[in-house]
Amino acid sequence: MRKRLRELGIIIGQFPTGPHNAITDVPGVRVGHCTLISDTPRVARTGVTMVVPRNDVWLNPCMAGHYSFNGNGEMTGLLWLAESGQLGSPIGLTNTHQVGLVRDTLVKYAVEQGFSDSFHLPVVAETYDGWLNDIEAFHVQEQHIYTALAAATDGPVAEGNVGGGTGMICHAFKGGIGTASRLVQTAAETYTIGILVQANYGMRHLLRVDGRPIGRTLDHDRVPIPEHKRPTGNSIIVIVATDAPLSAGQCTRLAQRATIGLARVGGTGHNGSGDIFLAFATGNELLRDGRSHHAVSMLAHATLDPLFDAVAEGVEEAILNALCAAETMTGQLGRTVYGLPLESLVA
Amino acid sequence: MRKRLRELGIIIGQFPTGPHNAITDVPGVRVGHCTLISDTPRVARTGVTMVVPRNDVWLNPCMAGHYSFNGNGEMTGLLWLAESGQLGSPIGLTNTHQVGLVRDTLVKYAVEQGFSDSFHLPVVAETYDGWLNDIEAFHVQEQHIYTALAAATDGPVAEGNVGGGTGMICHAFKGGIGTASRLVQTAAETYTIGILVQANYGMRHLLRVDGRPIGRTLDHDRVPIPEHKRPTGNSIIVIVATDAPLSAGQCTRLAQRATIGLARVGGTGHNGSGDIFLAFATGNELLRDGRSHHAVSMLAHATLDPLFDAVAEGVEEAILNALCAAETMTGQLGRTVYGLPLESLVA
Amino acid sequence: MRKRLRELGIIIGQFPTGPHNAITDVPGVRVGHCTLISDTPRVARTGVTMVVPRNDVWLNPCMAGHYSFNGNGEMTGLLWLAESGQLGSPIGLTNTHQVGLVRDTLVKYAVEQGFSDSFHLPVVAETYDGWLNDIEAFHVQEQHIYTALAAATDGPVAEGNVGGGTGMICHAFKGGIGTASRLVQTAAETYTIGILVQANYGMRHLLRVDGRPIGRTLDHDRVPIPEHKRPTGNSIIVIVATDAPLSAGQCTRLAQRATIGLARVGGTGHNGSGDIFLAFATGNELLRDGRSHHAVSMLAHATLDPLFDAVAEGVEEAILNALCAAETMTGQLGRTVYGLPLESLVA
Amino acid sequence: MRKRLRELGIIIGQFPTGPHNAITDVPGVRVGHCTLISDTPRVARTGVTMVVPRNDVWLNPCMAGHYSFNGNGEMTGLLWLAESGQLGSPIGLTNTHQVGLVRDTLVKYAVEQGFSDSFHLPVVAETYDGWLNDIEAFHVQEQHIYTALAAATDGPVAEGNVGGGTGMICHAFKGGIGTASRLVQTAAETYTIGILVQANYGMRHLLRVDGRPIGRTLDHDRVPIPEHKRPTGNSIIVIVATDAPLSAGQCTRLAQRATIGLARVGGTGHNGSGDIFLAFATGNELLRDGRSHHAVSMLAHATLDPLFDAVAEGVEEAILNALCAAETMTGQLGRTVYGLPLESLVA
Repeated sequence: MRKRLRELGIIIGQFPTGPHNAITDVPGVRVGHCTLISDTPRVARTGVTMVVPRNDVWLNPCMAGHYSFNGNGEMTGLLWLAESGQLGSPIGLTNTHQVGLVRDTLVKYAVEQGFSDSFHLPVVAETYDGWLNDIEAFHVQEQHIYTALAAATDGPVAEGNVGGGTGMICHAFKGGIGTASRLVQTAAETYTIGILVQANYGMRHLLRVDGRPIGRTLDHDRVPIPEHKRPTGNSIIVIVATDAPLSAGQCTRLAQRATIGLARVGGTGHNGSGDIFLAFATGNELLRDGRSHHAVSMLAHATLDPLFDAVAEGVEEAILNALCAAETMTGQLGRTVYGLPLESLVA
Repeated sequence: MRKRLRELGIIIGQFPTGPHNAITDVPGVRVGHCTLISDTPRVARTGVTMVVPRNDVWLNPCMAGHYSFNGNGEMTGLLWLAESGQLGSPIGLTNTHQVGLVRDTLVKYAVEQGFSDSFHLPVVAETYDGWLNDIEAFHVQEQHIYTALAAATDGPVAEGNVGGGTGMICHAFKGGIGTASRLVQTAAETYTIGILVQANYGMRHLLRVDGRPIGRTLDHDRVPIPEHKRPTGNSIIVIVATDAPLSAGQCTRLAQRATIGLARVGGTGHNGSGDIFLAFATGNELLRDGRSHHAVSMLAHATLDPLFDAVAEGVEEAILNALCAAETMTGQLGRTVYGLPLESLVA
Repeated sequence: MRKRLRELGIIIGQFPTGPHNAITDVPGVRVGHCTLISDTPRVARTGVTMVVPRNDVWLNPCMAGHYSFNGNGEMTGLLWLAESGQLGSPIGLTNTHQVGLVRDTLVKYAVEQGFSDSFHLPVVAETYDGWLNDIEAFHVQEQHIYTALAAATDGPVAEGNVGGGTGMICHAFKGGIGTASRLVQTAAETYTIGILVQANYGMRHLLRVDGRPIGRTLDHDRVPIPEHKRPTGNSIIVIVATDAPLSAGQCTRLAQRATIGLARVGGTGHNGSGDIFLAFATGNELLRDGRSHHAVSMLAHATLDPLFDAVAEGVEEAILNALCAAETMTGQLGRTVYGLPLESLVA
Repeated sequence: MRKRLRELGIIIGQFPTGPHNAITDVPGVRVGHCTLISDTPRVARTGVTMVVPRNDVWLNPCMAGHYSFNGNGEMTGLLWLAESGQLGSPIGLTNTHQVGLVRDTLVKYAVEQGFSDSFHLPVVAETYDGWLNDIEAFHVQEQHIYTALAAATDGPVAEGNVGGGTGMICHAFKGGIGTASRLVQTAAETYTIGILVQANYGMRHLLRVDGRPIGRTLDHDRVPIPEHKRPTGNSIIVIVATDAPLSAGQCTRLAQRATIGLARVGGTGHNGSGDIFLAFATGNELLRDGRSHHAVSMLAHATLDPLFDAVAEGVEEAILNALCAAETMTGQLGRTVYGLPLESLVA
C-alpha cells in the first residue's frame, strides 16, 4: 500500500499544507485524469491530465507566467501567455507525441462550449513515456481529452500512475503525477500555493529526500535501474497555482522558483529534459467582456518571499508525492520500472 | 492575370534577388503546399504549407532562432529551438485550429521515416482564416500534411491563395503566401537570404508600397474593406532562410529584422496579431550521429549588416508578393475579400 | 533657423499631438539637459539628459518595460526593471564612456535626497559620440548630472545638439535629442504618449521622411557624409512615456513598437548599434511605503492598438525632429557633420 | 584558523577538482582583489575583485551567456553580451553604489591599453555591503580598480573577506568571495569548470551543507543573527568559467545551472536579492581582427550533462568555501557578523 510522503512521517519545510495538500486547495482549481492502461492491441501506459484554473477561464483568464529551465519539451500556448501575461484555457498534460491532439481538441471543446467568437491558444504540455508506453501507437484519442475534462474536480487528486503521468519515470523509479500545497500567511492575508507535477526526470544517484542522499544509499539490487532507459526524454512539468493577487511578472517569478524545489530533490536540468514550469494566479478577474480596463490588485514585491519559499517547498513535496504514489509498473517489451521502496524512506 | 511585384516594375531595395526570388533560392530549401478549397459539405478555404530546410533536417538540424513581435499566435517547438539554437524538423504553416494536428502528424511522419530513436518537437505555426474559411469544420486531415510534404520542391514557389495561406487577409486585401530572396555579397562570399511569409495582418490605411501610402489613396469603393472583419486574428508568420554560416544567436538577430520589413509595409503588431518570425541557417552541418563536437563556422558579427538589410528588404517584398499574387476570394457566408488592384500599384 | 518637422508642413500619421509635441506632454514628466561644448583643453561635444518620470519616482516607481532591438549599447538598471516591471529612478542619457558616472551619481543624489533606506539601481543609457567629441577626455563630471537634474522641467523640450545628444550623428546628418507626443482617444479616456530619442544611428541612403526616400535623392555634394564615420557606435535610445494605466508587460509591448517608428525612418538595427527602448507608464501609483498590496488599473489588451500605432508615429516624428533641430557641428580634429537641409524636406 | 570545506573532510558531489579547486584552474583565467578595510575617516569594508577571462579578452572575446534568477541587482554590459553571445572585458565585482565607477574605469583602462579603436561595454556586477560597510562614503576609487587588475593572477584565489566580497553576509554568517572547480571527463576530452561567487544572500534557517540542515541546528546564541540585517540587499553573483568549446547558448545553459548549486545551499531567490549568473567559455578564439568568419567548435548538446552537474556541484562548494573562509567581522556602528563556526560543520 503506497502512502503520501507525510503519511510516512516526512515533513518538507515549514509551511502548513492546505486541506488536501493538493493543487485543488487553491479555490476553483480542478484536476481530472484519463488513464490509458491496456496491453492489446498495443501496449498503452499513457493518458491525459487536465488542470482547470477556474470554471470560466475561457472568458476570464488568469494572470500567468512561465519559465523553461531546460526547454527540451513542448508546452503550447506560451507565446500568447508571455505576451498577454494571461492563461485562458485549461492546462493539458499528456505524452510527447500527442500534445497537438490535446491542443486542438481543447480548441474544439471551446468552440462547442460556445466560445467561438475568437480563436484559442490553449496550453498543453508533455513528457515522454516511450519506454513503458508504446508511444508510436498514438493511443490518446479525442474522447480521452473529454473524459479528463469531465473528470476534473476539486478535492483530493489521484497521484502516481494516472493521467498524463501514467507511464512516467523519475530518478529511475516509477514517476508520474504528484501534488502538494502550502498556506502562506502574509501581513494582509493567507494565500494558498498549489503545485502539480508530471515527474519524468532525473538520475537515481542524485535523488535526495529532505536533503538525505537516498539515491546513493538505496539497495539497487532490489530496485534495479531500467537498463535501457534512454538518457533523453526525461522531463518535468510543474504547474503552480495560487489565489494570491499576482501580476503576470510575479507569476513568472513563482514559476522560476520551481527550480529550487526540483534542485532539492535532485534535478539538474539535463539536456534531454523538458523542465517547464507554469504559474497562474486566480486572485484577479480579467473578464473579456468588452471592458476597456481591469481593476486589479497586485502584491507588493516585498511581500513575495514567503510565496517563493512555499513554491520551493511545494514542488519538492509534489515530486516526492509522485514517487511515493507511483507503483511498480511493467510496460511494453516486458520492461519494468520499480516504485520507490517506501520503507527505505522511513529508515 | 496577377503578377509579382517586380513584374509590375516595382523594385524593393538594393540587393539583387536569387534566380526565383523565392525562399527556395537558398540551396536545399524546399516548399510544398496542400490547398483545400471546396464549398460542400462545409466551406473550406484553408490548407497546409511545408518549408523543408534540408532533406536530412531530422538528423542534421540547422542553426535557428526566433522572435515574437506580437505573440498572439502559436508556433510549436520553440522551447527546444530556443534552448538548442537548432531547428530539427520541417516547418508547417496552417490555420489556427489545427496546428496541433500538423504538429503530431510531423511526429508520425518522422516515426514512419525511421527517425523513431528519439522524440520530436516539430515547428508548426498558424494564422487565423476563420473569416473566409469555416474553420470550425477542422478541414485539414493527416493526408493533407503528407500531400504538402510530398509536394515540397525547389524552384518557383506558388504564392497567394495556396497552402496555409489560402484563406488569409492582409491589409484588408486578400493575403496569403508570399516569398522573395536576396543575394548578399560579403567580404568572403555571396550568401542567399530567402523569405517566405503567410500574411494575414494589417489595416488598409497603413499599407505602403516602397514608402508610398497606397492604403490611404486607393479607391475603397471599388475594393471595399470586409465589413465584418474582426480586428483580432490578424497575423503574419515570417520564415527567413539563409545558407550563410550563422550561429543560433545570429539567426535570432535575423528573425528580429523581419520587423523592419513588416513595418515598411504597414504592420504595427496589433494586439490580435501573431507576428512570429523564425530564421534558420543551413551553412553548418550539425549531424546527430553521436559525435561529441561540431566544427562550425560563424560569420563575424561585424559582417552581418548587409544580411540584416537584406532580410528587411526580402520581408517587405515577400509580403507585397503575397498581396500581388492573391486573387479575390469569396468564402463562407458569401464573404468576399478583394485582391489588391495591381493597376493601382503601377499608377 | 531650424524648425520642427511640423513647422515645415510635414505631418506624420493620424493622431493629434499634445500641446508641446513633447514627452513632457505626459503629466509629471520632466526633462533637463546639461550640454558640454568647449574646445579647450580638449574638445567637448557631449552632455547629459535627464528624463524624470515623476517627482516622487524614487518612492513611487512607474510600471515599465524595455526592449533591445540591437543590444550594442548600455542601459543600466534593466535587470531589476525586468524583474519588477518597475522604474524607480530618473533616466539618464549620456555618452558611452561615462554611463557609469551618471549611474553612480544618481545613487549619490538619491542618498543625499534622503532615500538612503535602500539600494538603488538607476537607469542610465548611452550612445557613442566619439567622432565629434573627444570621448577619451571623459568630460562629464558629477556636477553636470546635478545640473541636468536641476534643469528638468515640463513644457517645451530643447532638441538637437543638447544634453546627451550634443555630439550625435543620425543617418550621416547631425543627430541628437528629439521628442514628440500623441493623444490617443480610447473608449474610456484620452491618453498621452510621449517620446524622447537620443538619435545616433543609421545610414544616409536609408533615410525616409514619411515614406519618401530622401536619403537617396539628396544632393550629397552639398551635405557630404562624414568620411571617417566609423560603422560602429551608431545607436538610438528611445524613451516612451504614457499616462495610460499599463501593466509592466504592456509597457514592454509599447517599447517593442518603437521598432516600427525606427524602421519607417530607415533604421535596420545594424550590428554596431545600441537600439534600446524603454517605456514607462505613470497611470498607476506604486508607493513603496510598506503596504502589502497595490490597487492598480490596467488597460484591456484589446484596447491597446491605438497606443501601439501612436508609439510608432511618435518615434518616427521624434527622430525626424532630432534631425530637423540639429545644426551643423564641427568637433574634434576639424570634423564636421552637417545638419539635415530643411529646404530639401519641403521640396 | 579558517579552512576550506574539503579541508574539513566534506566533499561535495562526485567530480574531482582542479589543482587549486578554484576558477583559476581554467587555463588563462586570473583573479585579482583589492580589499578596502579601514575605520577612519569613515568605515570601509568593501573592495573590488577582477576576474580576467584571458589576457587578450579585449580583442579576443569569449563565448558567454548569463541568467538572472532574481534581478534585484546590477550587472552592466549584459545587453551586448546577450546580443553577441560574447564577453569582451574583465569582469568586475564590487559594492552596489560604485558599479558605475568600476565600469567606466575599465573603459578608461582599455583606452589606455590602446584598445581605443572602439567603444567598450564592460561587465561589472555588485552586491550590497551597506550593513558592515559605510557604503554611502563611496570608498572605491579608480586606483583600486587598477590595483585589482594588477593583482590578477592564476593559482590559488583568496576567499572570504577580500575584494568585492569584503563586507558581504551570507545566510546570516559572514560571506564573501568563494571559489571551486571541477574536472569533467567527456567522451572526447577533460574540461575544467571553474566557479567564483560573491556570496551575500540567504536566511540562516535555510542553510544546508551537503543536504544537512545546518542552519536549523546551529546554536544561534553563540553565533547570533545580525539584528538589523535588512531583508533587502542580499545577493549572489556567480561566475562560471570553462575551457570547453561552448556556444553562447550553451554558456547560458551553464549559467542557469548555477541555480541548482544555490538551491542546494539554501538560496530561494528572495525579492531583495540580485542572483545573477554569468558563464564564459574560453575554448574558442574569436579574434576581432577584421576577419569575416570564425571557425569554432561546439560541444554536441548531448555531451553537456556532466558539465551541468559539475556547475551545480561547483557552485554549491564555492558558496560553502566563501562561508568557510570568511572570518567574523565588525564593521560600521559596531555591527558584527560571525563567521560560520567550522567545528559545527565537522560535527
